[in-house]
Amino acid sequence: MSLSLRGRDVAEQLKSSIQAEVIGWKNQDVEPRVVTILVEGDPASEYYAKSKGRVARQLGIEYEILHFSRKVSEEALRSTVQKLNRDDSVHGIMIELPLPSHINTLSVTEMIEPHKDVDGLTRANRHANITGEQGIYPATPLAAVRLLKHYGFSPSGKHVALVGFGQTVGQPLFHVLVRENATVTVCHAGTPDISRHTLASDIIFVAVGKAGLITEEMVHDRHVIVDAGINQISGNEIVGDVDPLVAGKVRAMSPTPGGVGTVTTMQLFANLMTALSWQQNLGLLDLTAVGMA
Amino acid sequence: MSLSLRGRDVAEQLKSSIQAEVIGWKNQDVEPRVVTILVEGDPASEYYAKSKGRVARQLGIEYEILHFSRKVSEEALRSTVQKLNRDDSVHGIMIELPLPSHINTLSVTEMIEPHKDVDGLTRANRHANITGEQGIYPATPLAAVRLLKHYGFSPSGKHVALVGFGQTVGQPLFHVLVRENATVTVCHAGTPDISRHTLASDIIFVAVGKAGLITEEMVHDRHVIVDAGINQISGNEIVGDVDPLVAGKVRAMSPTPGGVGTVTTMQLFANLMTALSWQQNLGLLDLTAVGMA
Repeated sequence: MSLSLRGRDVAEQLKSSIQAEVIGWKNQDVEPRVVTILVEGDPASEYYAKSKGRVARQLGIEYEILHFSRKVSEEALRSTVQKLNRDDSVHGIMIELPLPSHINTLSVTEMIEPHKDVDGLTRANRHANITGEQGIYPATPLAAVRLLKHYGFSPSGKHVALVGFGQTVGQPLFHVLVRENATVTVCHAGTPDISRHTLASDIIFVAVGKAGLITEEMVHDRHVIVDAGINQISGNEIVGDVDPLVAGKVRAMSPTPGGVGTVTTMQLFANLMTALSWQQNLGLLDLTAVGMA
Repeated sequence: MSLSLRGRDVAEQLKSSIQAEVIGWKNQDVEPRVVTILVEGDPASEYYAKSKGRVARQLGIEYEILHFSRKVSEEALRSTVQKLNRDDSVHGIMIELPLPSHINTLSVTEMIEPHKDVDGLTRANRHANITGEQGIYPATPLAAVRLLKHYGFSPSGKHVALVGFGQTVGQPLFHVLVRENATVTVCHAGTPDISRHTLASDIIFVAVGKAGLITEEMVHDRHVIVDAGINQISGNEIVGDVDPLVAGKVRAMSPTPGGVGTVTTMQLFANLMTALSWQQNLGLLDLTAVGMA
């Protein structure tokens, strides 16, 4: 029987430490607050924006959704972001993606002040993740590695096959893994035979967005697999990139749903805590209440 | 008998195309000009600064070395860079590294305007190389891949073991290789058994700076090896990171000296041509002579 790398326990543990931090901020008269920009019409985005709200409430974090119609202009979104950048009561800004196709996503996300960019979307934060400088690193890669390590599997000194090298997950995940001292083989759309590389590895991370991509023939019984893929199939069923049958053949594997995604939602609020510390270091928080300033 | 991937032919070919471009610029009354900042006292730097001058002369490119004493201040170097940034007759700025230890190298190199940064040292150009955006990419990685491809070996679809992940060569080389569609395994100081990964690969790139790192046991007879390491041993002898005995065991290998380094010097001036085009697009060049403006 293989081990299931379930996200719930990890998220619960992370939740406790965030709750403690939130109390610490409140004791300094800082009310942690996040605003999500949601353009209506994409069911997955609406669902996700709401579910983050539920987690925020459990954490004692103020959470607000700004709703925009499908026809909103790029300029309106940009000026909203600018207003939130200037608003000292807002510590984190999230934008639900994808945005409608008439909007240049990058021109909106790049508008976010890096120290409020809890998704780690901006160029500055993506670059910080590459160099290891101070910044807010993308949440999904952090969540994927956190999940692995929670169950006692260290990537250090191990050979990781990373399948998928997209901007959102694969690329930042690569840099997190190298910083964790893993030897990483990067497989992508141009890799002729992915199984050659998965079979040679100790650990597999997948982030492609293609259901059933990793099959039984591509794994061995010592494998630990972290699946960051999210695919909606037939109706509302969500599956990962790994064929569920693989679970029975490997040492350990994260389920989907209930694996990486579960940790990612909590990681976003851990990122908010990073954002608050950064804002404190930049002198952006008013800490006069208890004489911290 | 294995093939020697000698840099000379590649450099000669590149030279011809640069010479043609230089003539093109001169016909538009643009005199391509590079300035190298040289802090005296490091023999390798002084040698390299001079040898670039010889190549520049062959190319019809104006080349000037600004000499500074070992005691020069960081501020003096920074203000020199700023002056060169503003000087429209200067199209490329190079700084010989390493700088003396009392100087924060990054604070000087970051001063270079990205479109004059022919070494591709600045954060902006390093990031451009990561994302594939317009910019000037670091010369050694470009030269290493150019050398490989010149001899008919395409990295596309191949499995590359990249040994060494330093900021100057390994990291930017990784991104160049992935863009060339290679499947890349990144080995670094934290990789317990490098031979596990070299033996599984088709092509090896090495950029560590450790003589004799790659030995006969780590290769097979189908290997193509590009050695970007430069190590000074016993007196003035220069060797790469690959044990010279390896050459007899593999399909092809670049020699050191006479391999990657030879191409790199020429690639710097190819980068100057990129810089000139970029400056033209930015409207920074005075092309009134032939009515181009």
